Amino acid sequence: IAANDKAALLEALQGWPAADTMAALTHLRPARARVMFDWIPDALGLKVMAELDPDLRSVLFSETALTTFSNIIAMMDVDEAVDTLLELPRSFAAQLVSAHPEAETIAAVLQARDDSAATVMRLGVLMAPADWTVAQLTQDIRARSQNLGKIDMMFVVDTARKPLGFLRFREVLAASDEVILSDILHPELLLVSADWDREDVLSMARAKNLHAIGVIDSTDKLVGGLSPRELGEIVREEAEEDMLRMGSVSPATTQFDSPFTILRRRLPWLLGGLGGAGFAAGVIGSFEDALAQAAVLASFIPVVMATAGNAGIQASTVSVQSLTSGVNWRGDFGGRILRELSGAMLNGLSIGSITALMVLLVSQFIPLHAPVYLALTALCALTLVTTIAGTIGAVIPFVLKSLRLDPAVATGIFITTTNDVFGVLIFFLVASALYL
Amino acid sequence: IAANDKAALLEALQGWPAADTMAALTHLRPARARVMFDWIPDALGLKVMAELDPDLRSVLFSETALTTFSNIIAMMDVDEAVDTLLELPRSFAAQLVSAHPEAETIAAVLQARDDSAATVMRLGVLMAPADWTVAQLTQDIRARSQNLGKIDMMFVVDTARKPLGFLRFREVLAASDEVILSDILHPELLLVSADWDREDVLSMARAKNLHAIGVIDSTDKLVGGLSPRELGEIVREEAEEDMLRMGSVSPATTQFDSPFTILRRRLPWLLGGLGGAGFAAGVIGSFEDALAQAAVLASFIPVVMATAGNAGIQASTVSVQSLTSGVNWRGDFGGRILRELSGAMLNGLSIGSITALMVLLVSQFIPLHAPVYLALTALCALTLVTTIAGTIGAVIPFVLKSLRLDPAVATGIFITTTNDVFGVLIFFLVASALYL
Repeated sequence: IAANDKAALLEALQGWPAADTMAALTHLRPARARVMFDWIPDALGLKVMAELDPDLRSVLFSETALTTFSNIIAMMDVDEAVDTLLELPRSFAAQLVSAHPEAETIAAVLQARDDSAATVMRLGVLMAPADWTVAQLTQDIRARSQNLGKIDMMFVVDTARKPLGFLRFREVLAASDEVILSDILHPELLLVSADWDREDVLSMARAKNLHAIGVIDSTDKLVGGLSPRELGEIVREEAEEDMLRMGSVSPATTQFDSPFTILRRRLPWLLGGLGGAGFAAGVIGSFEDALAQAAVLASFIPVVMATAGNAGIQASTVSVQSLTSGVNWRGDFGGRILRELSGAMLNGLSIGSITALMVLLVSQFIPLHAPVYLALTALCALTLVTTIAGTIGAVIPFVLKSLRLDPAVATGIFITTTNDVFGVLIFFLVASALYL
Repeated sequence: IAANDKAALLEALQGWPAADTMAALTHLRPARARVMFDWIPDALGLKVMAELDPDLRSVLFSETALTTFSNIIAMMDVDEAVDTLLELPRSFAAQLVSAHPEAETIAAVLQARDDSAATVMRLGVLMAPADWTVAQLTQDIRARSQNLGKIDMMFVVDTARKPLGFLRFREVLAASDEVILSDILHPELLLVSADWDREDVLSMARAKNLHAIGVIDSTDKLVGGLSPRELGEIVREEAEEDMLRMGSVSPATTQFDSPFTILRRRLPWLLGGLGGAGFAAGVIGSFEDALAQAAVLASFIPVVMATAGNAGIQASTVSVQSLTSGVNWRGDFGGRILRELSGAMLNGLSIGSITALMVLLVSQFIPLHAPVYLALTALCALTLVTTIAGTIGAVIPFVLKSLRLDPAVATGIFITTTNDVFGVLIFFLVASALYL
C-alpha cells in the first residue's frame, strides 16, 4: 500500500478505527511506517500516538515529520506530552515542547534526571485549599470539567501550596456539602522530592504501605503526584531493568539498538566473562600434564562448568528476587543460607550420582582407564562444586546489597564466571587426588 | 526479649506503633516471631498483618496460633482476608475462612486456580443500577460510608447484575444531582471471566489500553473488578515469575523453600543442563586425539563456553524483554535480527582479537607450539561462535513464542547449553582445520 499513493491510503484509512491504523503501522517496516505516519491527519495521529507504547513513539519520529509531531504534541494533555517527549532525542524534544500551551512545566520535567521521580510523576493533579467546603470543591470541578483531563488525585494544600494531605474521591462523594476539606483529608501522605531516585520512592512507598504520594520541589511546593498507576509503571520499568541487568546487558538496552550500540552495551560484560574464563583457562593450563596423561578429563569440563554456573544462577536469582521484592526477613538469614546449602548439597549428590552412573555405563562400550575411580571423581567433584556454587550464589547478592551495589548485576556474568573458575579448580584437584 | 516473659513484652509494645512492631518481628528468627505474634493482642495483630507483605504473613502462621489468626481474619475486609488466606496452606485456610462474615464469597475465590484473575480481583466494588440518578448514588454511598472499606471502582449494572460500564469518581463529582447514571457511564469496559489467566488479562488490557476491568462469572454477572492497583500487582508477580524462570528455577520458588523443595524445584533444570553438557562432553570426547596431541586446546574450552553462553543470554534477554513488554513491532523483525547478527559479529571480532593478542602475549613467556596459528584459531573460532550464539539467542524466544511456549524459559539453561555444544563443536572444527 505504502508505495506512493497518499490519497488512496488516506481514503482507505478513513473508515478504520485508530487501533487498526496502529496495528497496520506496526506491521510495516519502520521507514515506511514513518512515511505513513507523516501522511495521516494530525487528529488521527494523536489517537494513534495515545494507543502506542511510549517506546514505540520514538520509532515513528523522523526529522521530516517535525511539524506533524509538533501539532500532535500541542493537542496532548500535559502528562501525555511528557511521556512522548521523554522518548525522543533531547534536541528535538526541546524544539517540539514550545508548541504546547504548558511548555514551561514540561521543559522542567524534561531536564530532570532519567531515573528521578520527576519523569514519572503526574502533573495533572487537583490542588484544593484546606478551608474550602465540599460544595466549593464540587463547583470548582464542575466549572473545569471540560479540561479536567486525566486527574486521578486530589491534594489539599495550604496557601503556600505546601501539601497537607490527600482526598479520596469516594469520601468526597459521601460527605455532605458543608464539610470543610481539612476535616476529611488524609494526612498520611508520603512526600518525595522531584529529584529522588524512582527506586527509592518505590521502596519507601512499600515500606510505609502508602499509595498516595505527593511530589514537591525544592521549596516544598506541591508539583505533582504519583498514583498507584504511576507506581505500577515504576515497578514495570524497574523489573525490566533488573531483567536486562540479570541478562548481562546495560539497562538502557532496547530492541531498536544499532549494531554499534549493541557492541557498546554488551561488550563490557563479555569482556568481564572473558576475564573470568581466562582464569579458568589458566587453571586448566596448570593441569596440562594431567590432561596429557588423561585427555578424558577434558570431557568433564563442560559438565562441571554448566552445573556450577546453573546452580549459582538459580540460588542467586532467588536471593535477588527476595531482595528486590522487599520481602526481607532479616532474622531468617542464617536459616535461609543453611537451607540453600543443604538444598545445593542434595542437588549436587543427585547430579554427581547420575554422572557417575553415566561414566560406568559408558565404560561398558568405550574402554576407559579405571572407570570406577573416574566415576568416584565425578561424584565427589560435582557434589562439592554444586554445594559451593549454590552457597556462593545465594550469599553474594546479600554481600553486594550491603556494599550498596545492585544485586541484580550479580546473577549475570559475575556469579557464572566465579563459579566456573572454582568449579574447574575443584574438579582438577579432586581428579589429581583420586584419579591420577 | 522473647525469652519467655510475655507480660514484659506486651508492656514494651504498648507504646510502639504497628510499623515498629512489624520491624521487630522481621528481625527475629521465624520460630520466635511466631511466638511473639501469638502473644500480641488481636487488634495490634491486625495492624501488623496489614503492613506485612502477603508472602511474609504465611511465615507468621503456626498451628498453635490458629485462634489468633481466625480472630484477625474475621476483622479484615474481604479483599485483605483473601490476600492473607491465599498465602496459607489450603487446609488451614478452609478452617479460618468460616470466621469471616463473607465466608462464602471468600471460599469461592480460594478454590480458583492460582494464576486466574479471580485470585487478584477486588471483591469490594460498588455496583449501581443504570437508572439511578447521581443523587441516589451519593445517598447510597453516604448511607454505607461506614463499611465502605476500600472501594476503588464503581460499576453500573443492569437488573441481572450484568455490567454496562463504569463510572469515574471525578465525573460523578462534577455531574449535577439529577443526571442519570446511564448518561455518564463509560461503556469502554474490558470484561474478563474470573477463570482467565492473569497474564492474558494483562496483555488484553495493554493491547486495548483500558484500565477499568470488570470480572464476571459464568452467568455474565459482575463479581469483582481490577483497578490499576491490581494490574500493577499482576505486573509485579509476572515480572517475578519471569525473573525466576530466567534464573532456571520453578516460578513457585520462594526464599522460604526447604532443602527438599529446593531439590524438587531446581534439579529438573540442572538435569537439563547436565544433558546439554553431556553432548558437549561427547563432542570433546570425539576430539580426544586432538587433545592428546595438543592439551593446550583444553584451556580454550572455558573461554569458548563462557563467551557463547554470555552472548546468547544477552541476545535472548533483549528478545524476551521485548516480547513480554508487549512492544512488538512486527515489521521490524527482519531488521532486528540483522542488527543482532551484525552486533554479535562485532562483539565476536573484538573478543576474538583480544584473545588472539593474549595468546601471542602468553607465548612470549610460555613456550607454545605454533602460537600464530593458535591465535588465528582463537580469532576465527570466537568470532564465529559469538555470531552464531547471539543470533540463536535472539531468534529462539520468538520461535518459542510462536510455538505458544513461554519465551522466558529460553534465556535460562536452554540457550546456554545449546550454545555450549555449538561453541565447543565449532571451536574444535576450526582448531582441526587451522591448528593441527
